[in-house]
Amino acid sequence: METFLRVDVGRKTAVREKVAENYLKVGGRSLTVKLLLNEITPSCEPLGKNNKLIIATGLFAGTGLSSSGRTSIGGKSPLTGTIKESNSGGILADRLARIGIKAVIIEGLPQDDSWHLLKITPHGCSFIPADPYLGMGTYTLCETILTQFPQAAITCIGPAGEKLYSAAAIAITDKEGKPGRFCGRGGLGALMGSKKIKAIIVEGQGKVPLADEEKFKNCRKRYTQLLKDAPSSAAYREFGTAAMVGAVNALSGLPVRNFSQGSFDQAEQIYAESINASIRQRGGEGKITHACMPGCVIGCSNVFPDANGKAIVSPIEYETIGLLGPNLGISSMDVITRLNFLCNDIGLDTIETGAALGVAMEAGVLRFGDGDGAARILEEARRATVLGRVIGNGVVVTAKVFGIINVPAVKGQAMPAYDPRAIKGMGVTYATSAMGADHTAGPTARSPVEHKSPDGQAALSLKMQKLLPIFDCTGLCLFTIGAVAPRLDLVLDLLNARFGWGLDQGWFEKMSVETLKDEKRFNQLAGFTSVHDRLPECFTERPLPELGTVFDVPEEDLDHLVKYE
Amino acid sequence: METFLRVDVGRKTAVREKVAENYLKVGGRSLTVKLLLNEITPSCEPLGKNNKLIIATGLFAGTGLSSSGRTSIGGKSPLTGTIKESNSGGILADRLARIGIKAVIIEGLPQDDSWHLLKITPHGCSFIPADPYLGMGTYTLCETILTQFPQAAITCIGPAGEKLYSAAAIAITDKEGKPGRFCGRGGLGALMGSKKIKAIIVEGQGKVPLADEEKFKNCRKRYTQLLKDAPSSAAYREFGTAAMVGAVNALSGLPVRNFSQGSFDQAEQIYAESINASIRQRGGEGKITHACMPGCVIGCSNVFPDANGKAIVSPIEYETIGLLGPNLGISSMDVITRLNFLCNDIGLDTIETGAALGVAMEAGVLRFGDGDGAARILEEARRATVLGRVIGNGVVVTAKVFGIINVPAVKGQAMPAYDPRAIKGMGVTYATSAMGADHTAGPTARSPVEHKSPDGQAALSLKMQKLLPIFDCTGLCLFTIGAVAPRLDLVLDLLNARFGWGLDQGWFEKMSVETLKDEKRFNQLAGFTSVHDRLPECFTERPLPELGTVFDVPEEDLDHLVKYE
Repeated sequence: METFLRVDVGRKTAVREKVAENYLKVGGRSLTVKLLLNEITPSCEPLGKNNKLIIATGLFAGTGLSSSGRTSIGGKSPLTGTIKESNSGGILADRLARIGIKAVIIEGLPQDDSWHLLKITPHGCSFIPADPYLGMGTYTLCETILTQFPQAAITCIGPAGEKLYSAAAIAITDKEGKPGRFCGRGGLGALMGSKKIKAIIVEGQGKVPLADEEKFKNCRKRYTQLLKDAPSSAAYREFGTAAMVGAVNALSGLPVRNFSQGSFDQAEQIYAESINASIRQRGGEGKITHACMPGCVIGCSNVFPDANGKAIVSPIEYETIGLLGPNLGISSMDVITRLNFLCNDIGLDTIETGAALGVAMEAGVLRFGDGDGAARILEEARRATVLGRVIGNGVVVTAKVFGIINVPAVKGQAMPAYDPRAIKGMGVTYATSAMGADHTAGPTARSPVEHKSPDGQAALSLKMQKLLPIFDCTGLCLFTIGAVAPRLDLVLDLLNARFGWGLDQGWFEKMSVETLKDEKRFNQLAGFTSVHDRLPECFTERPLPELGTVFDVPEEDLDHLVKYE
Repeated sequence: METFLRVDVGRKTAVREKVAENYLKVGGRSLTVKLLLNEITPSCEPLGKNNKLIIATGLFAGTGLSSSGRTSIGGKSPLTGTIKESNSGGILADRLARIGIKAVIIEGLPQDDSWHLLKITPHGCSFIPADPYLGMGTYTLCETILTQFPQAAITCIGPAGEKLYSAAAIAITDKEGKPGRFCGRGGLGALMGSKKIKAIIVEGQGKVPLADEEKFKNCRKRYTQLLKDAPSSAAYREFGTAAMVGAVNALSGLPVRNFSQGSFDQAEQIYAESINASIRQRGGEGKITHACMPGCVIGCSNVFPDANGKAIVSPIEYETIGLLGPNLGISSMDVITRLNFLCNDIGLDTIETGAALGVAMEAGVLRFGDGDGAARILEEARRATVLGRVIGNGVVVTAKVFGIINVPAVKGQAMPAYDPRAIKGMGVTYATSAMGADHTAGPTARSPVEHKSPDGQAALSLKMQKLLPIFDCTGLCLFTIGAVAPRLDLVLDLLNARFGWGLDQGWFEKMSVETLKDEKRFNQLAGFTSVHDRLPECFTERPLPELGTVFDVPEEDLDHLVKYE
């Protein structure tokens, strides 16, 4: 029987509930969103007793299907005030599903100042006093916990979440027990911090039932082969997401020095080819290819080593490179990976933090290119100095404090590494996504279109926005899209075999649109209108120097898009 | 001929325009709001080139009618993102009207970093380089300018406005040339700072025409007598607004230690009687009664002296006492007036700043009662340290940075000194005013009702919200209400005599409702909905210890109110 684990941090209770009928056929993002819409008041205080932290598994979680174990975490965002769902790789969803938990719902607010670890096993759930762990960075925390619970999947926050920073992320361990996977966006780490849960430890293994095992195995074989054979998979395996650096730089769409330019004069140093050359040359713990969850045949991840071959961070990804690199005028991969490690360890979203540092640099708090200065500020965030707190609260707060009006954010959330004046489909996604500026909500940068033209971008973004929930609901990784999107029939067969359902392909569209509408409905009840589905003036009125373009997709197109027709 | 002075700070032009027909019969707040609604895009960036700063005179400005020279300043608020109108005493409106200027419209954005003083005379308008004045506090600035232009009315910003702080105010000189009068709310000082205007100097005197001079003089006589005879005027003359300290403390409605309590154990030290006793005892420059504009027969203002009889600040008002006193656990009037002086000199709204300091104290940045610490932080705001910048950006930013969820604010603006759990009519006003938490939008605290009961509060607030635009449009001071509200026929006669109009009394209600609807319409276009017409959870769910009450006026009542029926 699939269950929800409902944890009340006020009363310190944890109860397994049978999953109600209406939640059976949704998973991941779709489940997170539906639970939030049904269970919380959208206008509530994000860090108050009425918000809930939802951790949901995708429909394929626990089946061992390649690249299908994404974990969805959601709540009302402490950063944006919108609905927030952020999903991540790592081993959590697989583990939860294997002990029969479809979702964990964490609610209430502690009545005192004590912090806890939440330990979840097949036999129960317990609160372990967390005093010895407070203040720990995510890496030390996970190492320490793993000495005691070596088989555990760990979900945790760093000092950023403890301090309730709006840019605080939630880390999830990968198959090596490293906290390198993040539900990064929207400050969900602060929401977990408000519940005073420093880490969630999941132990125990089991098998998820397969309604038609033979059919499932059969389909899985074809699916795995499809993934293995896809050119997109080969590219991810070889270059990871860093392949985008060169492509986006060529489009003049990189975030350079707080989005004041779109192409970076030192871009070659951060090209995927350069990164791979360094990894190969340095050897040691460095890896070109790495999988964040067992059985993933893509392996988009990597491990970047220092000059002595010791791992600095894993993975190093495109968005992080963009925001902590060119956006700060930094081209050294050693510096960028060091900043990435610090963000991970402190538990900060790299996109939000990079954008905040970019604004601080524009304000003259430190100069563009000053990697040591950026690292010092991140250490200040760890120690919770006032400056550290400001940066830790994201780009909008940082801009407000330093009087900067060029703020790369939508609905309060920092833009990922695509300048919307150069890659206008991404601009449409940023503007219209219920989550604030979010590249994963409807990624258009890889589509073969004229990115700097406003024409057709709303339609393209809509297509992608309607495609993504299918992946986010099933728990399939975004990076399976290239291979799997043309073969959704196979995904449907796998679903029907897993659960014994008789869904037809129309279900995908129906579920997807329902999720998108649920998200918008939540935001509407939280006080958001079409006025918030816009980019800021610094993108609609300040031309990108290289192209002379502004973001000029008509507002009517944006308003039409959110009808999801 | 009445004119608008339109100043473009980008092109450095200033043009006198004939006032269009549709603006002739509105003044003050109603004019400010109408100009904003017609001339700016409500969703614009408040500190960007598309926002405008409006300075409008009331309909009686320049006539010498007692207590009728309020100046209205407005724009899209850098603090709240809503429409913002804030009005003040002082001599500006009188002077503008006397040289034929009904309103000043400041638009555009400078193309370089240079700052200017704007000098307005009957013969023209000039930009004077402001380099020597940058960084000056408002008192030194006004003293310096007055040595050169001794007759000038000065409107200026302090360091807070220069640094674009969201709590930055605009100061207006009183009849002694002291910058003690403030358009304090909503960060309009930052808007003026974004236009890089450090001060506006108005020179020249003249007479405004009176369509029916004899009738006007006749009515004025009766009006003045009415004001003089009113018990409310006598109370303002003797105690100023500080009379509210005792009254509100008795209702358990004082803001005490970041609104965690409603009655203050050391309240007697800040009672009006104690204040007056100190002023009398210390003598010197101290004054119980003082008028901020020529000819005001109320004289609500005062001058608080130090132990040597030297003036610390003028005036000391109830809201300031509440927010910089009990809200910070401070009971010494010497400390409170010193903090008031610092806020004035730096150019910060005392309400917003007091609320921000209260949150910082709850967060442990300094302890409650630490007046020296509060003064040090204000000096940090002057010097623009990071902590100073945080506080200078108001209570919401401060709370975000320090992770505090008890935030006394609505629509991003700090609450004045009435706890809405004890004085629920004020809560209704805070919730529903288009300006954010604003006591002047619909003051209910002096009404003879059961303030802690939710019954009838929406109707009372609505009544007051509909009454206030009559005063704000004509330029009449709020403190004439007690005397004048029952005799609006006299105000109408004065208006008709001044302009040769034939308005009937129905006009007041029509104009008032139009202003309220204009304001709400602006907000709607700026992205605000009924969700924003609410108090935060810390007032609706956290009971006030003394009374055990929460703010519980039904949401339907709030939603009905804003129809203004």
